[in-house]
Amino acid sequence: MSQPVRIGIAGLGTVGAGTVKLLRAHAELLAQRSGRALHVIAASARDLKKDRGLDLSGIRLESDPLALARASDIDVIVEVIGGSDGIARAVIETAIANGKHVVTANKALLALHGSAIAQQAEAKGVILAFEAAVAGGIPIIKVLREGLVGNRVRRLYGILNGTCNYILTTMRESGREFADVLAEAQKLGYAEADPGFDIDGIDAAHKLALLTAVAFGRPVDFSGVYIEGIRKVGAHDIRFAEELDCRIKLLGLARETPHGIEQRVHPCLVPKNAPIASVDGVLNAVAVEGDFVGPTVFEGRGAGAGPTASAVVADLVDVARGHGLPAFVLPAARLSATPGSPIDRHRGAYYLRLMVLDRPGVIADVTAALRDEQVSLESMLQHGRARGPDDTVPVVLTTHETEEAAMQRALKRIAGLAAMREAPTLIRIEDL
Amino acid sequence: MSQPVRIGIAGLGTVGAGTVKLLRAHAELLAQRSGRALHVIAASARDLKKDRGLDLSGIRLESDPLALARASDIDVIVEVIGGSDGIARAVIETAIANGKHVVTANKALLALHGSAIAQQAEAKGVILAFEAAVAGGIPIIKVLREGLVGNRVRRLYGILNGTCNYILTTMRESGREFADVLAEAQKLGYAEADPGFDIDGIDAAHKLALLTAVAFGRPVDFSGVYIEGIRKVGAHDIRFAEELDCRIKLLGLARETPHGIEQRVHPCLVPKNAPIASVDGVLNAVAVEGDFVGPTVFEGRGAGAGPTASAVVADLVDVARGHGLPAFVLPAARLSATPGSPIDRHRGAYYLRLMVLDRPGVIADVTAALRDEQVSLESMLQHGRARGPDDTVPVVLTTHETEEAAMQRALKRIAGLAAMREAPTLIRIEDL
Repeated sequence: MSQPVRIGIAGLGTVGAGTVKLLRAHAELLAQRSGRALHVIAASARDLKKDRGLDLSGIRLESDPLALARASDIDVIVEVIGGSDGIARAVIETAIANGKHVVTANKALLALHGSAIAQQAEAKGVILAFEAAVAGGIPIIKVLREGLVGNRVRRLYGILNGTCNYILTTMRESGREFADVLAEAQKLGYAEADPGFDIDGIDAAHKLALLTAVAFGRPVDFSGVYIEGIRKVGAHDIRFAEELDCRIKLLGLARETPHGIEQRVHPCLVPKNAPIASVDGVLNAVAVEGDFVGPTVFEGRGAGAGPTASAVVADLVDVARGHGLPAFVLPAARLSATPGSPIDRHRGAYYLRLMVLDRPGVIADVTAALRDEQVSLESMLQHGRARGPDDTVPVVLTTHETEEAAMQRALKRIAGLAAMREAPTLIRIEDL
Repeated sequence: MSQPVRIGIAGLGTVGAGTVKLLRAHAELLAQRSGRALHVIAASARDLKKDRGLDLSGIRLESDPLALARASDIDVIVEVIGGSDGIARAVIETAIANGKHVVTANKALLALHGSAIAQQAEAKGVILAFEAAVAGGIPIIKVLREGLVGNRVRRLYGILNGTCNYILTTMRESGREFADVLAEAQKLGYAEADPGFDIDGIDAAHKLALLTAVAFGRPVDFSGVYIEGIRKVGAHDIRFAEELDCRIKLLGLARETPHGIEQRVHPCLVPKNAPIASVDGVLNAVAVEGDFVGPTVFEGRGAGAGPTASAVVADLVDVARGHGLPAFVLPAARLSATPGSPIDRHRGAYYLRLMVLDRPGVIADVTAALRDEQVSLESMLQHGRARGPDDTVPVVLTTHETEEAAMQRALKRIAGLAAMREAPTLIRIEDL
């Protein structure tokens, strides 16, 4: 058996501690499977005295993660500190500069600086691996870079944020409103005290930007992702979706269009019988459509110590086996220059919920606004009648495929109608 | 860029032709992704004159596949002739003996002779890759050997035969009987004229034996797979399953038990809300439960030129990248000696359908037989009443978890009761 792989773990939070636990629990198995032992030589944490219920014997503890990144007795740094800049970035850049491989779970950092870091790794001839950054334990990066390597990807989409999926699932099962379910999710620990990062779609967009780069072989382009969160999805919408034989999911989607690569994160109406529609609770799933393989779906836990450690260790075993690849499949110089396609050029069908005063002529005004923009109606649903002259009723319209820009112009005019009592809710309908 | 990979394709049937098409369509993309060009140097086919609608220019054609396996200008042989012995086996063994890597889609051959062939490849230091042998385009071999390498697998199960899944799905959707749906599937080309290989579970068992070897790191043990096909599943059973909030699927399952590794292929009642329950038609899916990653599911097309070629090419790219691994993850000498656990020791719940004369005392006799074997009843369902003294009615009993041997003893006694007019139908209920 060859020399052991000498590992330094920067950060002993949930993922770092989970990784140490896995490497200890399966030390012998992993050595057999890798052909080399995986040794944790050193680790760093802000608070070295904290009891993590973890056996750290034989592991050198450092309070400065940069000391790990520079240590001469370490081959690979596992960066699980988190954060898109600051110390996490310094640790990765220092490790690469010192000729060490890097395994990271840091989606925010890679979404913002991934192309530069990948170039730095390429120049130094070290591996930059990030399976744990996207969809937890689902080995989707490996699937895209290797398992489906023979395909040109036409489209991919996924449930990439467990918090949003949990909230939307609970809203559907309980009929309750968003704010109420969010508060409960916060109490249960499924949502952060400051939930914006998850529920406003940022986290899903970080992950989508990485998936898009890998699947389409282009530089990471987080600023090219159109992002909407789930705050505006109401109990009304969940019910109407049901009536339309659909479910509402926050998806990250990327696809080839005639105008370039489209990247979007927003709530979607998806047909109830699409495989991804029944992925509920905190699960994640990614669907990939390749030109030869056809449609595929990969599902599993998207977060938590075990699944994330599983992904980190898969990357470490690749390092041990000497199976390195360019971070985004192709060397930086060969990445595709296909432009991004802006949301205005998106084409699709739409769901539009209006809260209107129940007066004659309102629907005529709404449909005229749509007609003037060449948006063609598919269906109209209304629940109940108003109980008084100032009471509103929800009306839902769905459209055939049209262009986003036209839809937005119509929406603006509709929002300005006198009978409109709340801002209209627009949700894109996906043809999955 | 390094030297091209020189490929010989033995067999130009659906998969071989699909592989040539893919390699031509994506030649440049694959060269970039692999770092080496993938050149088809030569191919063999029984009938070299047949029009395959395929551009074979620049490819040397041989009528003898063994000539490919011996050719000095070929680095890797793609064996897509098929068959568990005979020429396919000779091609693979000759190729390995001549120091060539082998990529094959041949599940039957590997299920029966995989351990010996893997040892031969190991001794010669060449790669034996077989992603295309299991679940078509789903990269499940890679997922098990690499993506989930950090886990001890607790259980895996899958829909591994598209023909059976198509028949069961159509029976459910149409309410028709097995024989009728099979005849239609044969007309549509979804089932072979001689359908036994698929519908008797042999094909699924070949694939399960390979999955088990990879997931549990033990020699391939096809003879250890308990096999039942779907011929005995009736329209009655599909309806009763629905009533029990279940669906009937032909699954291949492998799991750790206190008695060893259990391998089974048979029709199963699975809860309607299990992810695998909604995998319909000719799709395949494999679920893997790892101790760190938790439950995962991978879904896609299980057969056809495109998906299978996608898997073959993924293996070729691994060869090009120099990413070789032992066929069953561990070197032959280190494979696990955990024994197989026979079906008699299986523990689970059961569904039992009886066609009985509607006379007093029949159910008392049946339940007494179960009681005497300590089999505890969970529910009883009956549809309709007999229209005359010689008319039978279906009665369904479901049991709590019990041991297979006890259930079989009870079944034997029940089958011998005077009121029993057909052999009872026993279907295992899986807790997914």
